[in-house]
Amino acid sequence: MKLKVKDLDIATGGILIAILNHKDASKLDIFSGDRVAVKFKNRKINCIVDISVSDKMIPEGRIGLFEEVLAQLKIREGNIIDVVDIGKPKSITHIRKKLYGHRLNYQEFYEIVKDITDDYLTDIEKTYFVSSCFINGLSDQEVVDLTRAMVDTGKKINFNGIILDKHCVGGVPGNRTTMIVTPIIAAAGFIMPKTSSRAITSPAGTADTMECLANVSLSEKEIKHVIKKSNACIVHGGAINLAPADDKIILVEHPLAIDAEGQLIASVMAKKYSVSANHVLIDIPMGKSTKSQNEQEAKHLKRKFEFIGKKLNMDVKVIITDGSQPIGKGIGPLLEAKDVMGVLSNDPNAPEDLKEKSLQLAGLLLKMSGKYKNGYKKAKEILESGQALKKMNEIISLQGKKKEVKLAKHSYDIKAKKSGVIKEINNRTIAKIARIAGAPQDKAAGLYLYKKVGDKVKKDEILFKIYSNSESRLKLAKEIYQNFDCFIF
Amino acid sequence: MKLKVKDLDIATGGILIAILNHKDASKLDIFSGDRVAVKFKNRKINCIVDISVSDKMIPEGRIGLFEEVLAQLKIREGNIIDVVDIGKPKSITHIRKKLYGHRLNYQEFYEIVKDITDDYLTDIEKTYFVSSCFINGLSDQEVVDLTRAMVDTGKKINFNGIILDKHCVGGVPGNRTTMIVTPIIAAAGFIMPKTSSRAITSPAGTADTMECLANVSLSEKEIKHVIKKSNACIVHGGAINLAPADDKIILVEHPLAIDAEGQLIASVMAKKYSVSANHVLIDIPMGKSTKSQNEQEAKHLKRKFEFIGKKLNMDVKVIITDGSQPIGKGIGPLLEAKDVMGVLSNDPNAPEDLKEKSLQLAGLLLKMSGKYKNGYKKAKEILESGQALKKMNEIISLQGKKKEVKLAKHSYDIKAKKSGVIKEINNRTIAKIARIAGAPQDKAAGLYLYKKVGDKVKKDEILFKIYSNSESRLKLAKEIYQNFDCFIF
Repeated sequence: MKLKVKDLDIATGGILIAILNHKDASKLDIFSGDRVAVKFKNRKINCIVDISVSDKMIPEGRIGLFEEVLAQLKIREGNIIDVVDIGKPKSITHIRKKLYGHRLNYQEFYEIVKDITDDYLTDIEKTYFVSSCFINGLSDQEVVDLTRAMVDTGKKINFNGIILDKHCVGGVPGNRTTMIVTPIIAAAGFIMPKTSSRAITSPAGTADTMECLANVSLSEKEIKHVIKKSNACIVHGGAINLAPADDKIILVEHPLAIDAEGQLIASVMAKKYSVSANHVLIDIPMGKSTKSQNEQEAKHLKRKFEFIGKKLNMDVKVIITDGSQPIGKGIGPLLEAKDVMGVLSNDPNAPEDLKEKSLQLAGLLLKMSGKYKNGYKKAKEILESGQALKKMNEIISLQGKKKEVKLAKHSYDIKAKKSGVIKEINNRTIAKIARIAGAPQDKAAGLYLYKKVGDKVKKDEILFKIYSNSESRLKLAKEIYQNFDCFIF
Repeated sequence: MKLKVKDLDIATGGILIAILNHKDASKLDIFSGDRVAVKFKNRKINCIVDISVSDKMIPEGRIGLFEEVLAQLKIREGNIIDVVDIGKPKSITHIRKKLYGHRLNYQEFYEIVKDITDDYLTDIEKTYFVSSCFINGLSDQEVVDLTRAMVDTGKKINFNGIILDKHCVGGVPGNRTTMIVTPIIAAAGFIMPKTSSRAITSPAGTADTMECLANVSLSEKEIKHVIKKSNACIVHGGAINLAPADDKIILVEHPLAIDAEGQLIASVMAKKYSVSANHVLIDIPMGKSTKSQNEQEAKHLKRKFEFIGKKLNMDVKVIITDGSQPIGKGIGPLLEAKDVMGVLSNDPNAPEDLKEKSLQLAGLLLKMSGKYKNGYKKAKEILESGQALKKMNEIISLQGKKKEVKLAKHSYDIKAKKSGVIKEINNRTIAKIARIAGAPQDKAAGLYLYKKVGDKVKKDEILFKIYSNSESRLKLAKEIYQNFDCFIF
C-alpha cells in the first residue's frame, strides 16, 4: 500500500514505530503491534504498527513516522513510501514455546535475543519472554545458551592468557570497589578489561563515577591500546555494544521490579564472556535492601553462578558481603570518585570500609590468578606502597583525563532528630535521595554520610549532607528524607 | 513540576499518555511507563509517561499530550499544567503476587480489572498479568473471583425469572446460530437478552451480522424495552459496557495468540452473568482450526465451564459440535445475514447445516428451561411454522430496522484446480480471505461457499465466490487463496 509520509518530529528511542490511520490498517488487516516493512527506493526497514483512531494528525493515506525511521530511510514529510505486512518474526514462536513451558535451545534464544537487540519486538512480546523465563524458570543449560546468545548478538573483545574480572550484583550505594580493585590487579601484572555500566535506578554506576576522572566511552581499538600499555581499563560497556540485549530486557523488568535469576546470571556472565574473562569474582551483597535479602538466597545464587561459570569454562568465585548499609561515605558520581581517590592515595580520612572491602576482593582475585597464596597481603602492599594510585593515574591518562568536576553549588545538612546508636541505614532511601538531588546526571549531586551503622549520635549532630546544583532538587531531596526516614536508631 | 502543553494531535485510544522531555523526566526521577498526575485548575487525570529522547517536538519544559488527555482536562496547546509523580497503583503489587505463583482473591482481581478497565495499566503490566495467569494457571475459585471482578467493573442488567443465553467459543466462520436460536427461544416465551461481540480477528461477529438488519447499539433502557415487547434482543455488548476489561485483555493476548483457559471462561461467564442469565448453553466447536483441536481438550473445557457455572449459581450446559469446516454458505456480515434470513424463512436453498445446528442448540435451551422434554421438536415446530421469522422481524423492528445493505460491487469465482472429493476446509484461511476482501468493515465483503466437505467436485467447478467493494482488496484476497490452499481434496 502506498502512503504519504507525515514527519511526527518525535524520537522515543527503542523500537521503530509507524502510525497508520485505522482505515488503512483495516485494509491491510493489521493490528496495533503487527509488523510492516516500510520501503522507499531500494531502502527498507521493518516497523511496528501503532494505529491512530483519530483522523486529525494521521488521515487516511498518510503514515506517521518517528525521527529514527525517517533518518534510516533518508525520507521526509511528503515522500510516498510503500507499506507491506510482513507477519510475525520466528522469535515469537520461540517465546510462545517458552510460555507453554518448553525448553529453548541456543538457536531459539539467539533468534529472540537478536530481535530484542534489533528493537524488533514490542513491549508486549518482550514481556512475554521475560515473564515466561521468570515463571517457568531457566534450566542451567538454558542459562548457558542464553548467555552465549547474548554474547553472540554483541561485540566480543579477544585477549589471551589470564584475564581477571569482577562484578557486583548491586543494591549497595557507594560500593565503588571496582575503581580500587582494578588498578591493584593491573599493578600486580594481570590483565583486567573492566567494562562497567551507567546507573539505571541507582545514583551512580562505575561508568558514571569513573567519568568524573577520565573518558569512559572508548572504542574497541582504544580499549586494546589502554590495556596494552597499562594492563587494565575502566570503561563504559554500553559504548562498545557488549551483550546489548541486556539493557533492553532490564527496561521490561523495571515496571514490576522483577529480578529474574536466570536472566541476571546470563547478563553478568555474557558481559564477562564478551571480554574474554576467564577468572571472575562475583560480589553478592546481602542485606535487607539488596537483591539477596538472606543467607539462603545469597548462597543459592552463589551456587548458580559457580555452576554456570564452570559450564562456560570460566573460573567463577562468589563472595557474599555485608550489604546492610552503604559502602564509603560519598553517594553520587563525584563524591564516590573522591572516596576512591582517597583510598588510592592512602588518605587517613578515606573511608576504611571501602578500602577494606576492595583489598578483600583484590586479594581473592590475585589468589584466583594462581600466582599468590596470600592475595590480600599482596593487594595491601600494592595499595599502601602507592603503586595502585600510580596505575590508576596511568589508566586515567591513557583513557583521557577529564577536567575536574566542580563541587555542587548547594548543600543541606540533615541532622539527627534524637540521640542514639545507628542500627541500620536504608540503602533504597539513601539512593532515592541522591537521585532526587540529581545524581547521576548531575555528577556533583548526591550525599555524604558522616555517620554509619554502629556510630553513636547526639541530637542535632549532622547525619549526612545533601549536595545538588539545583535548589529545587535539593528541596525535593529534603522532602524525601522527611517522608522516609533512612536512619534507624 | 510546571510544564507547558504541546498538543500532539494524535489519539490512539486506550491508555492516556504524556510525553516528557528526557531532562524533565530525569528531574522527576521517573521512567518510561511510570505514572504522573497531570493537573489543571481543579481537574486532574493520571497518565502514563513516555519519554522523548529528542528535543525537537518536546523540548525541556514542554509536555506532549494526546487528544484524549486534552479533551478530559479541557486544556489546549500552551496551557501550563502541573505534573506530579504518583507512584505505582496497588494493582501492580497484586500482579507481582500472581507472577510469583501466589493465588489472588476477589479484592485483588477487582483492583487489577478496575485499573485495566480504566486504561491505567501499561501494555507491559497487562502482559505480566495475562502471562502469569496463563502460566501459573487460575484455580476454580480464582476464575470465579475474576469473573465477579469483571462483572463488578462493568454494567449489570437485571431481569427476573428464567433467563436463557448461549455462547459459542468460536473459531468457525459463518456459525451464525445465535440469530436463529434467539427468535426461536423468544417465540417459545422465554427471555433471552443476547449481547454479542463484533469481530476482532474473524470476518464477522454476530453484532456485525445483525447490524446488516437492525441497529445493534442500544442503551440499557432501549434493551429493556425491546425485551419487554419481544422477550429477546440481539445487540452489541460493547455498546453497554458489560465486563469492559475483557476486550482490553484480549488485545494483549492477540500478539502471541494466547488462549488462556481461565480468562476465556471468566470472559464468557462475566458477560452472561452481567445480563442475569441463569441457564446458559455453551457451544464448543471441535476441529483442526478451532480452539479445541481434539476431544480431550474440548471435554476438559466442557467440565471447567460446567463447574464454574455451578459456583456462580448458573445452570451451564456445554455441547461439543463439529468445527471441521464453516457453517452455512456465506462468510462476512451480509452474506451470513442472508443465510440466517434464509433459514428463518424456510427457504429451500438456505444452508441445511446452519438450520440443523441452530435447531439442536435451541432445542437444548428449551429443554434447559425445564418446560419441554423434547426441545428439538418444539424448536423445529417454531421455526418451520414461521413463528421464529415473525419474532425476528419483531426484534428487528423494535431495535430499529436498517436500510438493506447492497451486494458487493465486485466478485470473483474461485474454481477447483482438479476433480475429487473435498476432505477438509481450512477455517483460518477462509476467514483470512474474507477479511482481506474487506469483512467485517465492508459489510458486503466476504465469500460464498458453493461446496462443502464431502462434496464431489469436477475440475473448474466453482468452489466459492469472493465478494468485495474494493477491486484491490479482491485482488489481494485472490492472492491469499493462491498462497494458502484452503480446500483439501
